[in-house]
Amino acid sequence: MTAANETNSSSDRVVIFDTTLRDGEQSPGASMNLEEKLQVAEVLDEMGVDIIEAGFPIASEGDFEAVAEIAKHADKAVIAGLARAIPADIARAGEAVKFAGRPRIHTFVSTSPIHLQHQMRKSEEEVLDIITATVGQARNLVEDVEWSAMDATRTSIDYLCRCIEAAIKAGATTINLPDTVGYAVPEEYAAMFRAVRERVPNADKVIFSTHCHNDLGLAVANSLAGVMAGARQVECTINGIGERAGNAALEEIVMALKTRHDVMPYTTNIETPYLMRASKLVSSVTAFPVQYNKAIVGKNAFAHESGIHQDGVLKHAQTYEIMRPEDVGVRSSSLVMGKHSGRHAFREKLSELGFELGDNAFEDAFRRFKDIADRKKHVFDEDIEALVEDEIVMATETIKVMALTVIAGTGGPQKAIITLDVDGRHETREATGNGPVDATFNAIKAIVPNDANLSLYQVHAVTEGTDAQAEVSVRLEEGGRSVTARSSDPDTLVASAKAYVSAMNKLMTRRARSKADVLAV
Amino acid sequence: MTAANETNSSSDRVVIFDTTLRDGEQSPGASMNLEEKLQVAEVLDEMGVDIIEAGFPIASEGDFEAVAEIAKHADKAVIAGLARAIPADIARAGEAVKFAGRPRIHTFVSTSPIHLQHQMRKSEEEVLDIITATVGQARNLVEDVEWSAMDATRTSIDYLCRCIEAAIKAGATTINLPDTVGYAVPEEYAAMFRAVRERVPNADKVIFSTHCHNDLGLAVANSLAGVMAGARQVECTINGIGERAGNAALEEIVMALKTRHDVMPYTTNIETPYLMRASKLVSSVTAFPVQYNKAIVGKNAFAHESGIHQDGVLKHAQTYEIMRPEDVGVRSSSLVMGKHSGRHAFREKLSELGFELGDNAFEDAFRRFKDIADRKKHVFDEDIEALVEDEIVMATETIKVMALTVIAGTGGPQKAIITLDVDGRHETREATGNGPVDATFNAIKAIVPNDANLSLYQVHAVTEGTDAQAEVSVRLEEGGRSVTARSSDPDTLVASAKAYVSAMNKLMTRRARSKADVLAV
Repeated sequence: MTAANETNSSSDRVVIFDTTLRDGEQSPGASMNLEEKLQVAEVLDEMGVDIIEAGFPIASEGDFEAVAEIAKHADKAVIAGLARAIPADIARAGEAVKFAGRPRIHTFVSTSPIHLQHQMRKSEEEVLDIITATVGQARNLVEDVEWSAMDATRTSIDYLCRCIEAAIKAGATTINLPDTVGYAVPEEYAAMFRAVRERVPNADKVIFSTHCHNDLGLAVANSLAGVMAGARQVECTINGIGERAGNAALEEIVMALKTRHDVMPYTTNIETPYLMRASKLVSSVTAFPVQYNKAIVGKNAFAHESGIHQDGVLKHAQTYEIMRPEDVGVRSSSLVMGKHSGRHAFREKLSELGFELGDNAFEDAFRRFKDIADRKKHVFDEDIEALVEDEIVMATETIKVMALTVIAGTGGPQKAIITLDVDGRHETREATGNGPVDATFNAIKAIVPNDANLSLYQVHAVTEGTDAQAEVSVRLEEGGRSVTARSSDPDTLVASAKAYVSAMNKLMTRRARSKADVLAV
Repeated sequence: MTAANETNSSSDRVVIFDTTLRDGEQSPGASMNLEEKLQVAEVLDEMGVDIIEAGFPIASEGDFEAVAEIAKHADKAVIAGLARAIPADIARAGEAVKFAGRPRIHTFVSTSPIHLQHQMRKSEEEVLDIITATVGQARNLVEDVEWSAMDATRTSIDYLCRCIEAAIKAGATTINLPDTVGYAVPEEYAAMFRAVRERVPNADKVIFSTHCHNDLGLAVANSLAGVMAGARQVECTINGIGERAGNAALEEIVMALKTRHDVMPYTTNIETPYLMRASKLVSSVTAFPVQYNKAIVGKNAFAHESGIHQDGVLKHAQTYEIMRPEDVGVRSSSLVMGKHSGRHAFREKLSELGFELGDNAFEDAFRRFKDIADRKKHVFDEDIEALVEDEIVMATETIKVMALTVIAGTGGPQKAIITLDVDGRHETREATGNGPVDATFNAIKAIVPNDANLSLYQVHAVTEGTDAQAEVSVRLEEGGRSVTARSSDPDTLVASAKAYVSAMNKLMTRRARSKADVLAV
């Protein structure tokens, strides 16, 4: 069954195509590793995303592997792989998605005069031939083929119709018309869909799709305008991440359709209480903060500060709330955990937070929970989320932080003494540095030398108050690749050391993997 | 001259009404002090904002003072003060804005049945009488009166027309129709403006205004739809901050109108190269991060990651860029400063970054720049911005950090020894804590006891690399008030101590001020 069987332009069902793992990952600095991609894909699949674009298989061995692994693991979702209009790309995408229960190849080519002339240096007729050949090739590999007219919104409608006709003839089942540069306004974007649906033969046999970028702040409005004009697939990302100003945000599209069903009578398959969890996971694996006032998933989205609004909300919630917090997964009440909480309560709480751990991982997490409960008065949900996420990362560690002592302050130079466990062997070194964090990292490098460049160092207090756990994010870059790791601890410096070591562990896993790649070629 | 004289529905000039200091400041956690509000107002005025809503004078003495001070300092902009439909509010707003060259009173009342019934508990006729009385009162105080129909988008069009008619009759010169709960879609919002402009007598004598919230991600699209339907004032905020999911973002509205002038032939008075500076300032004084993929002002908004896009941009910028970075104040090249840079180069750089310092402040900043240049290889613009902002805060400090030594790590308990200068007297204390930051703050509290609650603790690496300066934000809350302070230093713990002390200085200034308030009553 192809996704095209599930809806058509006269149906009221809109399919959600999530491209967090492809267009989202193209955000400068947002790269995710395989484990992280699998975690994100699992949540997307569970929450009811119809199509997960898992990556761009020809781009790298890592991308290929991610698409193939997600294809193997996906339960319900169609898994799509991206391919340029190049035979090798399409073949590679086909190899990657073939493991999926429901595979899709998504191939694209530029259609606008500015791209044809300056980037591709091809004529309109040449591009038409390319469309016919590449869509046909994809259709020989899978039943479900999506074709995208890159920069559609800056393409003449006549030529766009010819391209779409060629793609449908060659077997495309979904036609995507992206606003690649985020240039369209809603009226224009809707008019384009109306025009092509009217003029292209067999337009009623395919699903039309929106793909909007947010350069002028109009991505959500444009996507919805596309749906009102007959599109029945929306391409979007969690938190709206993506190239430049990002893509249309999945959570905004879905909640707008749900909240304003009276004027936009369309439904999606998304279980909206997953939205907050998906948002937090994507923010965590990319280390991209979510703006406090981000619609739907920002920490202030359901918070009221002014006396007038608070008064109204207390009198009648609907005076200022058009959505219920629980509908997007914002917990209104919370079971507070403390040092007297036992294994049973802890397992309940984990399950409430959406985590299921194996027995060993559970025991480790419980032990660390008790450590924190001894040191903190209240253990909040965020503390527990932080430590469990930490636990997941630790599963693959070969270097571990055993002990750390830091002497810092205005006297300088700052000094750190660290003991690491490297493959079972304990080593201790002392180093100075420009600040306590720099000294700590220098001590680690004295034991495990590396040339990686520290491109991000960030500290968040995971919960409020002076006894907050600190969550530290560290990103290391080496040979064009980057890894991000997070760690949490009440002591910022311990969290920093652990995050740095965790990033090094990830880098070493990568190195091992790319050596294997080289051998495989 | 009232703002209404500058444009009308048949003109193509759209006036920009910035409410960062009023609706923006209502964001949970975004409160700004007087100094910070004056800084923001100065940038808004310089960049060409037509109307600055400076606050809600009756809300507190601090709000009154901020509106009055901004009114005294503003150069070109109209200064508006907000007032409920209550005689005391309007009188107070009038007192605050009277210092402005061009004062405006902005008064509002709810018009939707849900607000009338559940919040106000008044009949439609009672509300009409209130509108006539309060707008009339305001018009007796100032020539330029704006009236807002709170929750206009959930009000019946018949009753809305009667309210607007009453407001115009009573002397309102601007009529604002807010989408208070962020519920509207563009078509509806435009239809409302078309209907009231057609039906209300003398509608052509006033300016209609949009005010959109972003709960469903549609604030910018709704504002633009309002303009296309005849509105000629747009209410918006820098970075889109505001209650819940925030307001329409000023920078997105302005750049959408500029970039798509072909389909939206309207102009604003905004000098767009100020946009990035305004965004950074507001983010800095509120400690609200800007999402990396935020349209226009996010750090990724003009960044290209994928090979395909980079290739296109190198061949021809317009293939993927619809705006030029320099048009929104993003510097494409940068003069890198180092330890050999002298006073002249430093002053040039400060002026390039938009700072003008007096002689003493300049010497202090230069000395600190040299300190940093000695310790860091490259001093980036962000380093200099951080230290100058620090300098501005330090001007009012009565407590200073003189020395700090911290011993931290896995051994615990963490220990801090701090020396503070309190009004010229040096005191040293030692304290332990749960982590080095907690120990440091405990040591400070041992010298200067306080009951303030730490509601935010955040660390950013201001620049990349291990020799980055850390910027720490600390928010303290006391008796319902909150202050935020930032400080930067290569040593995170020193930056933390300085930020905490700076927040305490601000709190003490507040306390002194509110004691004066009590005496004045």
